[in-house]
Amino acid sequence: MCRWLAYTGDPIYLDTLITQPDHSLVQQSLNSKLNYNNAGQLLSTNGDGFGIGWYDHRPEPGVFKDDIPAWHDKNLANLCHHIRAHTFMAHVRATTTGDIQRTNCHPFSYKNWLFQHNGQISHFPRLRRELQLSIAPELFPAIHGNTDSETFFLLALTYGLMENPKRALQRMVEEVLKILEREDKDGVLNLSFAISDGLKLYTLRFSHNEAPMTQFYSTDPSCMEEFENDEIPPIPNGCTVVVSEPLDHTDSKWQKIENNCFTTIKQNQVTTETFL
Amino acid sequence: MCRWLAYTGDPIYLDTLITQPDHSLVQQSLNSKLNYNNAGQLLSTNGDGFGIGWYDHRPEPGVFKDDIPAWHDKNLANLCHHIRAHTFMAHVRATTTGDIQRTNCHPFSYKNWLFQHNGQISHFPRLRRELQLSIAPELFPAIHGNTDSETFFLLALTYGLMENPKRALQRMVEEVLKILEREDKDGVLNLSFAISDGLKLYTLRFSHNEAPMTQFYSTDPSCMEEFENDEIPPIPNGCTVVVSEPLDHTDSKWQKIENNCFTTIKQNQVTTETFL
Amino acid sequence: MCRWLAYTGDPIYLDTLITQPDHSLVQQSLNSKLNYNNAGQLLSTNGDGFGIGWYDHRPEPGVFKDDIPAWHDKNLANLCHHIRAHTFMAHVRATTTGDIQRTNCHPFSYKNWLFQHNGQISHFPRLRRELQLSIAPELFPAIHGNTDSETFFLLALTYGLMENPKRALQRMVEEVLKILEREDKDGVLNLSFAISDGLKLYTLRFSHNEAPMTQFYSTDPSCMEEFENDEIPPIPNGCTVVVSEPLDHTDSKWQKIENNCFTTIKQNQVTTETFL
Amino acid sequence: MCRWLAYTGDPIYLDTLITQPDHSLVQQSLNSKLNYNNAGQLLSTNGDGFGIGWYDHRPEPGVFKDDIPAWHDKNLANLCHHIRAHTFMAHVRATTTGDIQRTNCHPFSYKNWLFQHNGQISHFPRLRRELQLSIAPELFPAIHGNTDSETFFLLALTYGLMENPKRALQRMVEEVLKILEREDKDGVLNLSFAISDGLKLYTLRFSHNEAPMTQFYSTDPSCMEEFENDEIPPIPNGCTVVVSEPLDHTDSKWQKIENNCFTTIKQNQVTTETFL
Repeated sequence: MCRWLAYTGDPIYLDTLITQPDHSLVQQSLNSKLNYNNAGQLLSTNGDGFGIGWYDHRPEPGVFKDDIPAWHDKNLANLCHHIRAHTFMAHVRATTTGDIQRTNCHPFSYKNWLFQHNGQISHFPRLRRELQLSIAPELFPAIHGNTDSETFFLLALTYGLMENPKRALQRMVEEVLKILEREDKDGVLNLSFAISDGLKLYTLRFSHNEAPMTQFYSTDPSCMEEFENDEIPPIPNGCTVVVSEPLDHTDSKWQKIENNCFTTIKQNQVTTETFL
Repeated sequence: MCRWLAYTGDPIYLDTLITQPDHSLVQQSLNSKLNYNNAGQLLSTNGDGFGIGWYDHRPEPGVFKDDIPAWHDKNLANLCHHIRAHTFMAHVRATTTGDIQRTNCHPFSYKNWLFQHNGQISHFPRLRRELQLSIAPELFPAIHGNTDSETFFLLALTYGLMENPKRALQRMVEEVLKILEREDKDGVLNLSFAISDGLKLYTLRFSHNEAPMTQFYSTDPSCMEEFENDEIPPIPNGCTVVVSEPLDHTDSKWQKIENNCFTTIKQNQVTTETFL
Repeated sequence: MCRWLAYTGDPIYLDTLITQPDHSLVQQSLNSKLNYNNAGQLLSTNGDGFGIGWYDHRPEPGVFKDDIPAWHDKNLANLCHHIRAHTFMAHVRATTTGDIQRTNCHPFSYKNWLFQHNGQISHFPRLRRELQLSIAPELFPAIHGNTDSETFFLLALTYGLMENPKRALQRMVEEVLKILEREDKDGVLNLSFAISDGLKLYTLRFSHNEAPMTQFYSTDPSCMEEFENDEIPPIPNGCTVVVSEPLDHTDSKWQKIENNCFTTIKQNQVTTETFL
Repeated sequence: MCRWLAYTGDPIYLDTLITQPDHSLVQQSLNSKLNYNNAGQLLSTNGDGFGIGWYDHRPEPGVFKDDIPAWHDKNLANLCHHIRAHTFMAHVRATTTGDIQRTNCHPFSYKNWLFQHNGQISHFPRLRRELQLSIAPELFPAIHGNTDSETFFLLALTYGLMENPKRALQRMVEEVLKILEREDKDGVLNLSFAISDGLKLYTLRFSHNEAPMTQFYSTDPSCMEEFENDEIPPIPNGCTVVVSEPLDHTDSKWQKIENNCFTTIKQNQVTTETFL
């Protein structure tokens, strides 16, 4: 399983969240001590690539990806120390399907949209053809890699992500479930998305036939305080941070996003709706 | 455009042809002085990855690929110095379509088959969806990259490459031309394939709406002599070498393969048939 | 031989010079048609890695490097499209000595300083030990790669680059020549440096026993016009661009920097002094 | 800390030990569940590169390295499935010092010698200059990376590794301890080497001021049986396998090599001598 975080609010340097905290996403990618799932199983190392996507003064996002572990990458540390953004996301990958290559790293981008995912679908190699046939033909050239995640993103675009994100994701999930169930009644679909158009940040938490992936958010500027070392500047007021994994020691500052929820975030306004 | 070579005969170390000669494939990948096409235009550098595939004592071939230039790669030099094979191929890539990633590097393999290509099809990004729909569903999971070449290989497998190579390639080319011509009457299809099952070596030279890519072969053990330096061992009797690019100074030892030809090679027996 | 450019002036997006012009540094790295040296010899492809370094709001520069060709790198294109800097440099590498690895890519950085180089010293593998013994012991841990260029940078730092750049480079060159001449009276030292502390841009052009590498600068905001395509924004007034290679069609807008010159640049004020 | 294995005996395919067993070196590199040290601490993931070195029909060894994790590398799996060797070693890296680059990956080679290491020396960045000054000047050009391990190998060569391995390692360790103790009386030196000239396999286990790294060997052809799955062929009689990490469930088939021991192995003849 992968891990991700997302931020929206006043511009901050990316290293504030991605590389500097003692329990930063990059630290999590290596240090498997904390990587237990709900069932108490030790999860695998997130060493199969990483990526960041951010919005600054350009309408379309910047994206930087590599197919190597994040933990010792000097480019990542350096870029996160120099890039400021009002909205950004970051992802570390542990592959369940798909080769180790940059085109399989998150976030994926299309025009002004960014998308990242943690989760899985059963039998993806067998289902891939039918899922990709449902992608709009004009979006088919945008398939660069061979992951379920990129397929989900292009399906969501096909169903109108840029016009109505929630509705598009609903139609996408319904279509994917239909294809999955034809293959296997007990097949798993487990989705934890972070999506942005540069204006708002959206997340989806949805699962079918499996315990859902986690999502937590905080609008508390002190939410990273316990992980801070001297070098981390404070997080500004009026922002929201969303993470895919529990940060156990700071429960009171972090809100759990319930399963089957679609969330819309603007600054520190977090609106959660039932998804399906 | 890419470049490739292929060998079949008594086992030799791969460096005999791939890395050691003064005008080896690896030297060609860097040294653009000789990279002129038929029209006298200087061709681009082949720095977008490389690959080797070989047959030794295992039925399925060994494959080694990387998405970096071949010219300074110590792994490639070292492996070619240690690997002996009775049949092998090597490829250096200059991308016309598809990302720079290992899954886009040649040769492609499937079971005991190897396949490499130099050439192009017009409008591949637009045609890719329809071409890939023609791939047998059970072969769809074998799509790892996003090149026309891998698509051609999986189409050939779909049409029976493993049973009747020539017939399968004919059906594949007919199908591809049909799809191409619906998109663009003047669209180009230009194919130079090397294919092997470990028993025989096959090549195809075919072009439509463009001057064909070149193919030359030699069964002369002294065919590399002019490029030899002291370290290259002689090539054994009873072998065949095929190359995608002209080696101008040794014309008399090299035979041009005509356009629209399918060639079957076993040791130094070279049988050429009209293709379509 | 490598190629580089450097810019100082009002902040611009890096792609204005590095990736967008028709004859950009990245285009030059691949397209060997224009890579002739003074003697009319076709130069090798600059495919052995690249790097950019830039100054924004942080005192220390940002640096991004990779050991793959620049020409198809999406990270480089994306970052140059999003990063704005008042002073920056970029480098494409064709190795003469040193492995293909990120730690051998330019620019090199130390605290608030950046350094990049095009050139060579004869017999570097044999001279390296003695040259590196002259590096201040406290700077020895800063040796990450195995190039002459990094060694020159650390020697310059040893001799006081941060206090008096010209004097430090003079002492460095004198020391290097002494070591070189003990090995080979006819040995070549050929240096073309771009250096910055984030406040000024410095260049050195110096050669010994060989025709010097070239350097050209322009303070003309229209200097890139002939290479512009529609997407390139104009360069602001009051800036200076320095390049390592001749741009033949725009001679009148570009000034040649003479050999044996140390140049100091602040905005569009260019001061050239005899070096030794 | 790194991990390694070494084999000598009748030729076997490398995947027999490196990639196929359920508890193979490559599995260990990822699956941190078993990576506890003597103190019960979970050790870090070995994702910072890997390498294999082997002896076949050439006097000098083949070497293949990459600076990415071993666990999903198709090249490694493919090469280990096709390469047969009578003597080989393999290494997965978790860096304590030195950049992530191929020149820092083990095994290191020089002429017909291979060398790999697990361990550390305190304060290596500060000690590196003095240690490397002790390398014979004619071997200085062989420094390609920036690890303590490569430095130890070149020091061993300096002190006569090719003539008398044990004596050379003794002199090397004495020299290194002298340099270390001038810097820090409590400094740690912890060495676990595997070395070969293609005729014999040597190991060193030595520690100073720290609990030693482990070494285990087996001459029992069934030593891998408990880790075997159906695809693993049996190990031949008359061979020796050495590993750097405990394989707890098979204690009776594995012998612990004591600390401060130099071991010489030829087929299944294992001779252990007190080192210092």
